Amino acid sequence: MADQDVEKDLLKIASAFYTQLAEGEIPSFTLPLRTRDNIVYDEKERVWVYGEKEGLRSAKTVKGAFQILKTAYLIEFLKKQLDEGRSSTLRELYYISENWGDAKFNVQSESDLLIEDLEIVSQNQRECFHIRPEEDGASVFGPLKVKEQTRKGEKVIHCQDDVGDAGYLIPNNIDKVEFLEHDAKMILAVETGGMRDRLIENGFDEEFDAIIIHLKGQPARSTRRLLKRLNLEMSLPVFVFTDCDPWSYRIFASVAYGSIKSAHLSKFMATPDAVFMGIMPSDIVKYDLPTDKLTDKDKDALHSELKDPRFNSEFWKKEIKLQLELGKKSEQQSLAKYGLDFVTKVYLPERLDELG
Amino acid sequence: MADQDVEKDLLKIASAFYTQLAEGEIPSFTLPLRTRDNIVYDEKERVWVYGEKEGLRSAKTVKGAFQILKTAYLIEFLKKQLDEGRSSTLRELYYISENWGDAKFNVQSESDLLIEDLEIVSQNQRECFHIRPEEDGASVFGPLKVKEQTRKGEKVIHCQDDVGDAGYLIPNNIDKVEFLEHDAKMILAVETGGMRDRLIENGFDEEFDAIIIHLKGQPARSTRRLLKRLNLEMSLPVFVFTDCDPWSYRIFASVAYGSIKSAHLSKFMATPDAVFMGIMPSDIVKYDLPTDKLTDKDKDALHSELKDPRFNSEFWKKEIKLQLELGKKSEQQSLAKYGLDFVTKVYLPERLDELG
Repeated sequence: MADQDVEKDLLKIASAFYTQLAEGEIPSFTLPLRTRDNIVYDEKERVWVYGEKEGLRSAKTVKGAFQILKTAYLIEFLKKQLDEGRSSTLRELYYISENWGDAKFNVQSESDLLIEDLEIVSQNQRECFHIRPEEDGASVFGPLKVKEQTRKGEKVIHCQDDVGDAGYLIPNNIDKVEFLEHDAKMILAVETGGMRDRLIENGFDEEFDAIIIHLKGQPARSTRRLLKRLNLEMSLPVFVFTDCDPWSYRIFASVAYGSIKSAHLSKFMATPDAVFMGIMPSDIVKYDLPTDKLTDKDKDALHSELKDPRFNSEFWKKEIKLQLELGKKSEQQSLAKYGLDFVTKVYLPERLDELG
Repeated sequence: MADQDVEKDLLKIASAFYTQLAEGEIPSFTLPLRTRDNIVYDEKERVWVYGEKEGLRSAKTVKGAFQILKTAYLIEFLKKQLDEGRSSTLRELYYISENWGDAKFNVQSESDLLIEDLEIVSQNQRECFHIRPEEDGASVFGPLKVKEQTRKGEKVIHCQDDVGDAGYLIPNNIDKVEFLEHDAKMILAVETGGMRDRLIENGFDEEFDAIIIHLKGQPARSTRRLLKRLNLEMSLPVFVFTDCDPWSYRIFASVAYGSIKSAHLSKFMATPDAVFMGIMPSDIVKYDLPTDKLTDKDKDALHSELKDPRFNSEFWKKEIKLQLELGKKSEQQSLAKYGLDFVTKVYLPERLDELG
């Protein structure tokens, strides 16, 4: 979305305060409740979003009045930042408020939350406010040509031919990147860096026309947004290749269905078509993989996933129950038991065949 | 070093076992003790290295015999890997040993340690064995042209003109990268991603002819090696820009002086000329920076640094004592109190002036 449109959305919030004051009303605004029981499944978008329960933020109380004051200051700052084409990190924003007098944030979690509130009310992502995360973007390797709007104008980069073996590093705001063309049949999102490097060394990207994306564990917002956009704009299927443990299943779920903490962003970031291609508990048996014992924490997480609506399918129930029975977990790299080529010559081709 | 030379160094170790056996001796080899009291300062290289205390690893005991067996298997594997131009991660190596019968590693820490032993005995870095880490390489942004030996031949990349705003991502083996030419006056190694992005947005690299490198907290081996090589091969001064807390001082020390755990690599990885340009306790006073209280852990770490020979200088003693007095720590991004340009318009230029 253009900066001016984002600015308009933000100013609408501030101008509502102004109207309320002019009409002798106490300034306030409403927000959806951000709790587990206010998460509903959006059939159309096939992601989890906030439901209709709302809370009121009003200047009636002292705390509420401070909140409205901070909101006004924050909108003013964001407006200025957009006007000047600047950007700042969540951490910088917290320090910038040092000079806002009574509107100063006491801890960073306060400013982080208020930015999320503005995302919800204005229906924009914080990236549109030019608010950057600390976290790094993911790297991309494969037959994809992109155009990035950089500090110094547009740059066209081919993510195989114009980069080193470590790939193209996406900027913290992926929406500055346009996808020009590709020669790919699939996206493979990979949990660990070791496996990413393995696939590139083995030439998986070329043999299977794959764009390989490194998730780096629980993926950053920009990584999830990247996957969503590649899936949507390039009509490419997304496969998620992870370890075999409950935390990896959560990685998959956050890619495919979105998370409770940022359910307001599910429609920007979740890729409901994403397919799980991680190591499965049944693979531990099938391939006799090296394993570690499940810890108590692992077991608790698996039990909690059995109750999680996002894992409410025959496939997940069967696999999770099998894993609890086995009492074992396994890693992507355990496939190296059968040599360095096993993953690209045998495992992934077999999985792709099964999944069609 | 060429792969054949590395292979020779490794085979020398195995052939010593063979000679020992042929002569009716029990196979063994010696290793420096890797303890704090066997660390000495190398005046010539100006880094901390292992001293002369040695331990014997001999097949006399069952445990020792297994170690020698594992060493022999490992050397065979590395030889094959070098012959085939392949590489593998530390994690994969552990899994590969699944098929080595009695020589199988029981936990990954065992294979990690044995690789370190081979580094010490053969006087090579594990990167020369084509053993990769899981960790990511750092990103580079600035007026530097590099040539990377990629999977598909040589690629020349300019780290300002040929990359997006996130920069050039160095491969896990930095020694595959050659520095062709540069137009820089300095290297600035930056602790946090938020600050790295700030410097790039503000155009610090252009205004100060700086190559900006993201340390990502405690820097990976490849990042330290990169700094060392840029300092040595390009004769560029290295400045380290960190937060103001004991952990950041350790980041600086590992860049400048090396670490105890990898003292055998100090001469490859430490940059004794590196200059600390992080936020100083005296800056907290001078600029009235926003702070957090020191935790007990912070205080312990500061006290331990007062006893650390690497911090045995007037500068460090004065600053660390001041910090303990203040009871406070501060972050790079706290400079944002004075606006987004303060760091590049005021703070860093003042520091560079002071340091000449």
